[in-house]
Amino acid sequence: MRIGKLAKLMKERNFDGALISPSSNLYYITGLRIHEAGERPTILAVSADGDFHLLAPSLYENVVKDFPVTFWRDGENPYEKLSAIMKELGINNGKILIENTMRADWLIEINRTVRMNPYPLSLVVRELRMRKDREEIRLMEKAAKVVDDLFEELLSWDLIGMTERELALKMEFWIRERSDGISFEPIVASGENGANPHHEPGDRKLRKGDMVILDYGARWKGYCSDITRTIALGRPNEGLVEIYEIVKEAQERAFWAVREGVKAKEIDGTARRVIEEAGYGKYFTHRTGHGLGLDVHEEPYIGPDGEVTLENGMTFTIEPGIYVPGLGGVRIEDDVVVEGRGRRLTKATRELIIL
Amino acid sequence: MRIGKLAKLMKERNFDGALISPSSNLYYITGLRIHEAGERPTILAVSADGDFHLLAPSLYENVVKDFPVTFWRDGENPYEKLSAIMKELGINNGKILIENTMRADWLIEINRTVRMNPYPLSLVVRELRMRKDREEIRLMEKAAKVVDDLFEELLSWDLIGMTERELALKMEFWIRERSDGISFEPIVASGENGANPHHEPGDRKLRKGDMVILDYGARWKGYCSDITRTIALGRPNEGLVEIYEIVKEAQERAFWAVREGVKAKEIDGTARRVIEEAGYGKYFTHRTGHGLGLDVHEEPYIGPDGEVTLENGMTFTIEPGIYVPGLGGVRIEDDVVVEGRGRRLTKATRELIIL
Repeated sequence: MRIGKLAKLMKERNFDGALISPSSNLYYITGLRIHEAGERPTILAVSADGDFHLLAPSLYENVVKDFPVTFWRDGENPYEKLSAIMKELGINNGKILIENTMRADWLIEINRTVRMNPYPLSLVVRELRMRKDREEIRLMEKAAKVVDDLFEELLSWDLIGMTERELALKMEFWIRERSDGISFEPIVASGENGANPHHEPGDRKLRKGDMVILDYGARWKGYCSDITRTIALGRPNEGLVEIYEIVKEAQERAFWAVREGVKAKEIDGTARRVIEEAGYGKYFTHRTGHGLGLDVHEEPYIGPDGEVTLENGMTFTIEPGIYVPGLGGVRIEDDVVVEGRGRRLTKATRELIIL
Repeated sequence: MRIGKLAKLMKERNFDGALISPSSNLYYITGLRIHEAGERPTILAVSADGDFHLLAPSLYENVVKDFPVTFWRDGENPYEKLSAIMKELGINNGKILIENTMRADWLIEINRTVRMNPYPLSLVVRELRMRKDREEIRLMEKAAKVVDDLFEELLSWDLIGMTERELALKMEFWIRERSDGISFEPIVASGENGANPHHEPGDRKLRKGDMVILDYGARWKGYCSDITRTIALGRPNEGLVEIYEIVKEAQERAFWAVREGVKAKEIDGTARRVIEEAGYGKYFTHRTGHGLGLDVHEEPYIGPDGEVTLENGMTFTIEPGIYVPGLGGVRIEDDVVVEGRGRRLTKATRELIIL
């Protein structure tokens, strides 16, 4: 339970309370694992004094135990009950932090019954979550190991002739049998599809000469890993080989730029400069990386506007890429933790593998 | 594209505009399939005059084509761009419909730059989505067929000794290889775990004498199916067999109560009466069913407070259940469409199967 830590920080920052719906923040703060609440309001109210109370649908009566909770049944108005809880906690007005991913319809209804000034919860919680403790880093190493192992394993699979979707499904299955699950749906982008950094695996079959981007991750006790490797099925186009070496160099240099006290945007700048100097600047269309932890995207973001100063215990990805429409793309991504300098959690080789 | 229909209904109901984030509503209205926008604002603005414009992160430049769109890059402020779009469409104040599942942090930021009165989008869109056309029902039949086929198939699997999680994973992959994917993560609740209607599959091994609740669904071109069957692994406890017959009777009677012009709550009342009269009323802890379509939970909800009057083309589940703590549970669920009377989309047998 990190409710005490949250309350302390809320008080320091002059927030009066927080409303937290099921999310990685709820798990981080309470240890409660409540999934898939769907449209039924499920909300933890916390005051800056550290008092707290959960509102949950009666469906969870057998799930939520040893926790201060009020259940509501289908047919009852959950927002009236929440309003009473907030009054009891003394947070029925003022500056209230709202879980970022809470459904908008809940917030709209809460705003009808409670006069509050809402702010995104991440404003405060990110300060806590950004700095991982030893145990959190240990779990992230476990998650990283799973995806390293899969990379080694899949090099022996019969890739030619598989569709992107088939490969993505096989990778997902492999991960889910060996971990708490995937941290996001695997991306398999082959040939010209590699030019779309968020390509969804489709019916295109992998064939000789393809470069294939594999971007996937696992969870271990809630903590995420996230790796990208780009492999070649037989000798690829020379242009893509050149691009591969540029991306690898950008990734390498960005990694060496990581150290305590440096700003996130400096890491981004280091990677971006390598790619710009090679003449591919306009084909690097995203940030260099993102924080990683209970969420697969969290603070600190490693982009041109990354003002966070890196501290020990921060964990994030470094994943420059180059995407050329009509030709394809390359991305190389490692998970990194700051410990004085950077330490890679991802161990898989970054050399171009030609199968 | 159903933007015209949406705009017409907005005008009738005196709404000025709508903001729609990636969701089944965005797909229903535009046909755009944008997934996993994560924390990056992606929002379609629509006016009651039928004008519309999309705001999307530049990552989607290769995905969103032939559509009026403004892209924003990491480092830019997307809310300023959205505000400009809303001004251009003349919807920067007034009554604005907000996609129900939009992230609260987006709504909070939009509220900072735009003076609007937000309402849940479902208020209007559910009127459209609740009434399926012929093509939609055809897709739902396809989705229902997949889960019927899986039920037949899994009866031949070696269930004894499998953990709930292993069985759920195997079912999921079976579905994903034959459809667009699962409509939700399969529920496998064995033995006493059956007493929790939303049990998450765990490490409990299936064993002889268990009743096992299997609740799962598939998607076909976005449309969902949702089936529950409860099977017995060898002769189960007599109490559970009695419960099975009560639930089957409740499901059957509720199905026969379906007809055009009847209120949803009458269907719920019919199922509930059967269970109450058998003395198990307090163990039936949820609604009798829910609408089904692009979402696995949508209007019309079939509960004690279901005021929707059934019309032809409405599709929903009928799924009464009885859950006895310490003993276990039974639920039987079919998907149904209103065509004068009810027609079952789910064809799998409802007789108790003892393996």
